[in-house]
Amino acid sequence: MQTLPGFRDFYPDDCARRNYILTQWREVARRYGFVEYDGPVLEPMELYEKKSGGELVGQLFDFDDKGKRHVAMRPEMTPTLARMVAARERDFKKPLKWFCVPQFFRYEKQQRGRLREFYQLNCDIIGEPLPAADAELTAVLIDMLRGLGLTENDFVVRLSSRTAWQQFFAQAGGKPEDEYEFFQVVDKAERAPAEKTDELLRKFGLTAQAVLDFMHSKTPTAELVPVLEGLNARGLGAFVEIDYAIVRGLAYYTGVVFEVFDRSKNERALAGGGRYDKLLSLMSDGKVDLPALGFGMGDVVLANLINDTPAAAAQRDAWLKDERACDVYVIIAQEERRSDALALVQQLRDAGQRVDFPLTAAKVGKQFQTAELLGATRAVLVGEEWPQVKVKTLATRAEVLVPSAELVSTLGR
Amino acid sequence: MQTLPGFRDFYPDDCARRNYILTQWREVARRYGFVEYDGPVLEPMELYEKKSGGELVGQLFDFDDKGKRHVAMRPEMTPTLARMVAARERDFKKPLKWFCVPQFFRYEKQQRGRLREFYQLNCDIIGEPLPAADAELTAVLIDMLRGLGLTENDFVVRLSSRTAWQQFFAQAGGKPEDEYEFFQVVDKAERAPAEKTDELLRKFGLTAQAVLDFMHSKTPTAELVPVLEGLNARGLGAFVEIDYAIVRGLAYYTGVVFEVFDRSKNERALAGGGRYDKLLSLMSDGKVDLPALGFGMGDVVLANLINDTPAAAAQRDAWLKDERACDVYVIIAQEERRSDALALVQQLRDAGQRVDFPLTAAKVGKQFQTAELLGATRAVLVGEEWPQVKVKTLATRAEVLVPSAELVSTLGR
Repeated sequence: MQTLPGFRDFYPDDCARRNYILTQWREVARRYGFVEYDGPVLEPMELYEKKSGGELVGQLFDFDDKGKRHVAMRPEMTPTLARMVAARERDFKKPLKWFCVPQFFRYEKQQRGRLREFYQLNCDIIGEPLPAADAELTAVLIDMLRGLGLTENDFVVRLSSRTAWQQFFAQAGGKPEDEYEFFQVVDKAERAPAEKTDELLRKFGLTAQAVLDFMHSKTPTAELVPVLEGLNARGLGAFVEIDYAIVRGLAYYTGVVFEVFDRSKNERALAGGGRYDKLLSLMSDGKVDLPALGFGMGDVVLANLINDTPAAAAQRDAWLKDERACDVYVIIAQEERRSDALALVQQLRDAGQRVDFPLTAAKVGKQFQTAELLGATRAVLVGEEWPQVKVKTLATRAEVLVPSAELVSTLGR
Repeated sequence: MQTLPGFRDFYPDDCARRNYILTQWREVARRYGFVEYDGPVLEPMELYEKKSGGELVGQLFDFDDKGKRHVAMRPEMTPTLARMVAARERDFKKPLKWFCVPQFFRYEKQQRGRLREFYQLNCDIIGEPLPAADAELTAVLIDMLRGLGLTENDFVVRLSSRTAWQQFFAQAGGKPEDEYEFFQVVDKAERAPAEKTDELLRKFGLTAQAVLDFMHSKTPTAELVPVLEGLNARGLGAFVEIDYAIVRGLAYYTGVVFEVFDRSKNERALAGGGRYDKLLSLMSDGKVDLPALGFGMGDVVLANLINDTPAAAAQRDAWLKDERACDVYVIIAQEERRSDALALVQQLRDAGQRVDFPLTAAKVGKQFQTAELLGATRAVLVGEEWPQVKVKTLATRAEVLVPSAELVSTLGR
């Protein structure tokens, strides 16, 4: 009996590593004034069919429930977010700065960095059209990775613009209704043979060379200049590069778009996002028309990069050690003192300490071994010294006798 | 476009209330030396069919995935836990003290306290046959609720024993293979008419009166005495009552069993659990044979009880207020100082402060209103005093001028 392909068991060590990433995401999001929301893991299938493009519809875990509703396990958050905002838009002061850390489900081929379930941080700013919002969103994205011990030597945000490509296309005489098709060609232009791209672009009166020349220009457009200024003012300029090769596959992006890559290029994109100013209106049948922007960052590729970056891995391991540690291990040296020991255990726990003790009678030496194994900072020995207890600091082996009635105040965190 | 029936959107306030419960659960579990694990949301259907009883199989969200696997969204954790422990049992020192806070999915009729998805704390101790483990498990259960501001006036743990009923049944000449049927009759005996119960018990040579007499006796059996002693030693005796009416519907319990109810009896059970010493062996086809015990506590009934208990609700609301608060709101009094303000925002965030600021130019008075609305503790005004900034403590209105280069150290948390 095994897990399904692409699904993970989280044994305690795995779970702690997962929690490290989720905790850091929450911590940084809140430093930026983002508030957490969440939605259902299961949604009506129509919710995902409604979004233009529908790129994920073919990868859904969808089925008919016992009430004959066609439902799907969530593959992304944007449709849920759009529904939630549309339903209660008036209750919230704009701009909304919302984040969530949902688990997503996509029926895809398993590869390095790609499973069938994963966690994904989503940060969105809703109701703010100015580039100050794009800068704030890019800054929180960068600080998510900085918070995990990654530096500008480890990753880069590749900043681009749908608007820039729209203008490029319009100047060449392209029509708005052909834009999406054009973006698909642009998205593949670096990897496809030039003749293939030329052929696809012919009907637009464009060439592969013209597209690649624009793609490789590094001059920020008027839209991107204030975003870069906002990041430079924060001292985060070194984390960003202009790269018009980024167009993002999804149909709904409208302005600034970006993707984050590790500098070694060993991994898939760490994160991606951008502006989707028309999507809320589309999703809500025009009920709510608010500019919006957001990004998603998954845990799987990120965990690989942390593993492969010594400083980031060391920071994580220090967190894990602290997270798992037991503060106090209570050693029961005389079984007839078990009730007294239990009372102390309870007092220490009530005071907020992490406390463990042996459920079974065991030799004192064995109990000390368990204390070490659990990473306890101190051992409290309850035995012949009662009503005093021996407090031993395990790192230094220093011992001190303390009246049991004063133990809690002595150990106070 | 709405959520599916029985599923919840978590708007920021709802999400914070959910997180309050999840955070408290994690905090208390770790005080007791439990470590967190997790498993997949989606599992092979056979995993849930394997467990004797199979009470939940009729309530599953199950379907065939795109690879034609019959799969189900998890309705409970025990089968996953059993699989995980069986696969790597030797890697862990016994007893295992493991907890998790998964979301479960059950296709049930929606009622007060019952949805189609819910979070459930699971705590399990694996590998310890002694009643000291039952006492430790019951103690952590009690402290989960105490930690949420609930007292012995608000809830009670009803402690019972499958062993006690097994012995009762055996003394009356019952055979082990009839035990489960007998337990089902006992489970309904208080609510069913006595004649009906008499009829069902006739073949076992028992009467409703005999069953009810034993059910209402308050004498702890030999098995329960040390559990009560363990709780009394911790000062938690007042939270527990012997109540043999508790038998637990699930087939796999083997010893001590318990359920937790609110004292007002307005709600469904808050939690329930007990020993299941034979289940791991059953689930692993005899590969792993370890005694085990555990409980589950859902978030829905619990949230109702917190809402209805003023002291618990006040404690939650204080936590929510602190959780949502913004530490510093940076007011941009002169737009030409925006870059300087952004640099300060970044420094403060890097120092761990929760900081927000206006993305759009706005009047100073309006910015102060936003600061108040976000629950900011302090406002930092960047304007004509530059390179000094005005720091205002919002609660007291006290103001002080600080050189901007010293702001971070001045505000240091």
